Amino acid sequence: MSGPVNIGLLGLGTVGSGVVRLLQQNGALITQKLGRPLKISRVLVRERNRPRQVEVDPALLTTDADGIINDPDIHIIVEVMGGTDAAREYILKAMERGKSVVTANKDLLALYGKELFDAAASNGVDLFFEASVGGGIPIIRPLKECLAGNKIRQVMGIVNGTTNYILTKMSREGRDFQEVLREAQDLGYAEADPAADIEGDDAARKMAILASIAFNTRVTYRDVYREGISRITAQDISYAADLGYVIKLLGIAREDEEGIEVRVHPALLPGNHPLASVNDVFNAIFIEGDAVGEAMFYGRGAGSMPTASAVVGDIIEAARNLNYQTRGRITCTCFYDKPIKPVGTINTKYYLRLLVVDRPGVLAAIAGVFGDREVSLASVIQERMLGELAELVLITHRVREQNLQDALKVLAGLPVVKEIACVVRVEGGENV
Amino acid sequence: MSGPVNIGLLGLGTVGSGVVRLLQQNGALITQKLGRPLKISRVLVRERNRPRQVEVDPALLTTDADGIINDPDIHIIVEVMGGTDAAREYILKAMERGKSVVTANKDLLALYGKELFDAAASNGVDLFFEASVGGGIPIIRPLKECLAGNKIRQVMGIVNGTTNYILTKMSREGRDFQEVLREAQDLGYAEADPAADIEGDDAARKMAILASIAFNTRVTYRDVYREGISRITAQDISYAADLGYVIKLLGIAREDEEGIEVRVHPALLPGNHPLASVNDVFNAIFIEGDAVGEAMFYGRGAGSMPTASAVVGDIIEAARNLNYQTRGRITCTCFYDKPIKPVGTINTKYYLRLLVVDRPGVLAAIAGVFGDREVSLASVIQERMLGELAELVLITHRVREQNLQDALKVLAGLPVVKEIACVVRVEGGENV
Repeated sequence: MSGPVNIGLLGLGTVGSGVVRLLQQNGALITQKLGRPLKISRVLVRERNRPRQVEVDPALLTTDADGIINDPDIHIIVEVMGGTDAAREYILKAMERGKSVVTANKDLLALYGKELFDAAASNGVDLFFEASVGGGIPIIRPLKECLAGNKIRQVMGIVNGTTNYILTKMSREGRDFQEVLREAQDLGYAEADPAADIEGDDAARKMAILASIAFNTRVTYRDVYREGISRITAQDISYAADLGYVIKLLGIAREDEEGIEVRVHPALLPGNHPLASVNDVFNAIFIEGDAVGEAMFYGRGAGSMPTASAVVGDIIEAARNLNYQTRGRITCTCFYDKPIKPVGTINTKYYLRLLVVDRPGVLAAIAGVFGDREVSLASVIQERMLGELAELVLITHRVREQNLQDALKVLAGLPVVKEIACVVRVEGGENV
Repeated sequence: MSGPVNIGLLGLGTVGSGVVRLLQQNGALITQKLGRPLKISRVLVRERNRPRQVEVDPALLTTDADGIINDPDIHIIVEVMGGTDAAREYILKAMERGKSVVTANKDLLALYGKELFDAAASNGVDLFFEASVGGGIPIIRPLKECLAGNKIRQVMGIVNGTTNYILTKMSREGRDFQEVLREAQDLGYAEADPAADIEGDDAARKMAILASIAFNTRVTYRDVYREGISRITAQDISYAADLGYVIKLLGIAREDEEGIEVRVHPALLPGNHPLASVNDVFNAIFIEGDAVGEAMFYGRGAGSMPTASAVVGDIIEAARNLNYQTRGRITCTCFYDKPIKPVGTINTKYYLRLLVVDRPGVLAAIAGVFGDREVSLASVIQERMLGELAELVLITHRVREQNLQDALKVLAGLPVVKEIACVVRVEGGENV
């Protein structure tokens, strides 16, 4: 084949504009690599007459999705419109028409991954999605290809830039969550409705995608246990630092004999862990494989040009497969059906902060409750007095989550325990 | 095609044994991913009867290279024997016979890359080499594919584990180079003849490969400027730490309007730079692209299983291309011919440690020499007295290397300057 590879771009927001800009900026280089130019033929927009973040020939803009999807001259559909309804419909239709698809849509993949990959396979087209996790960071292709010889044991990720920015700020400046969140909103690092980020939903979608690839079994968004960061205080961050830890919103996916665990929650991470120095809006994905050992991938997890970098990498690959008529070379790799472990069955350590009555015997009573549920304490520190109450910070040894939760329920009913102020898992140490 | 993909393995040392072990360990998983098993058909060894690090059917072992290369049933040759003479001959012959080649041989690629890639292209076979840089770290494929839409501005790497181990130890324990080197030799982290590592030759080979891919122009080992770490003292590491820096053996490849610079030398790196916390035998490659911004790839840069991880990933990819009859999909990307800048033309900052006579006017004389060559000083610290002499630590502003070297030549001739004890470039700040 010769002549340009024609692209139908669905969406011209932050990512779509980045894709247009990158193809303008590095078109000559990309043509050299591919042997053919990449050409944006049509762009789907909501309204044709609106100011744009990038220069585009207005004649390319259309509000007619079918006109793009049914255009026989368009080879590749690039979906960067977001959302799960229209995007799903368009992608499925495009694949039926024999077009390869590149998408950055984590929401869609984390919910309808199986349907989409089945459609790609049955239509013999490519479905690429490097930009759906970690923005510009190469992680999907390295996992699927470079590390394909490994059994992956664990994936740990800082995969949400907004929460990482907030926690980094809280940690550096000793400020509280609400205040830093408002500032992040003013700076455009957090949405007006920040729930998807701060409650861990966004990170959960990305972890569902990563876990599916890492363990070769379908994990959906609904399978991911999640907790957000809104209960973390500057005080907890400071206590954690005293103990040699940082607090991060962590995605964790692990496999053991019982199945797969996938969860997103704040976690204490040892200060010398490679993920501990991933700060601000940066993302990183830390992998443990049986051959490669520990590996980490670091970079900008969002933003117009970093995300466009991943999208354009996928477009080049999809175009190469067109050139060689080898679409569908690497398809869905979820060929197992592994059980998802309930969160109660996981084993980890915990950081706990309690407010208790300052009276002899209280500590013994608390330790007794833990001991009855086989929760053993690694350290107990009385941090300070808050009026009449004593603030206790405890770190447990590794324990089954259900036992810890049972113990906390009993503790909450003890008259001497006034508040279970903070419960955060401790991760990134040895996994035994 | 069905039936196994047959592999001829050249070499059964550390890496070769790892490849055999990994294919044994994860054979079922790999067969699932590929649709066919990978089978090691023949193994080239120096002597057939020798204890092995891995269990191999003795019937597979042979000392006859031609028997493997000419075997029409062998699809892929995996070269993990090292060296540049026999390995080059075997690889070229294998490609002539239509076999794809996977190699971990950085020495070979950094010297004869062009010849090898030309042979791969003219024979329509794949030549993959992920393991040649960064051991198990996925970096070649991410650069060639995921980041293909970027103009790469800079590649900085800690790509030699031995020197990183030594510098980390010196830094943590305040011990001197020779002592730590001996310990590293005892532990097997450094070779009996450590020159290739500590003089920067090994890192230079890897940087030649990375620079060739990053800038799409052929860079050979001979183009890389290099200095080793043997002149770095515990004292310099400690002074650097006081100033907020760590000292690493850094590979740096950059492009500007004048051409390409590729160099390997010790460097002061700000403590908050992502590469600064890469310690012990770990490697990392830090990339700056015009779209992706900053990205980093971290992991084990050597060792049997990590390197086997990269080799097996390449084997799977080569086998996939056999399945789809699309060998040679991604070939050499050195389609430009960019000039290599002489080291004298680079611009950077410098850390200098001088021993000078402690007398009024000495500092003015030194500052005058620098000023005459347009070297401006960012800071001057008199650290301590060594007998009669004063020890000065200076950091320059960004300056052209040749000017700095000229100034040092003049300084060395001043009677008041007793020793130019240490000269180390300062990197990883803003690049302007």
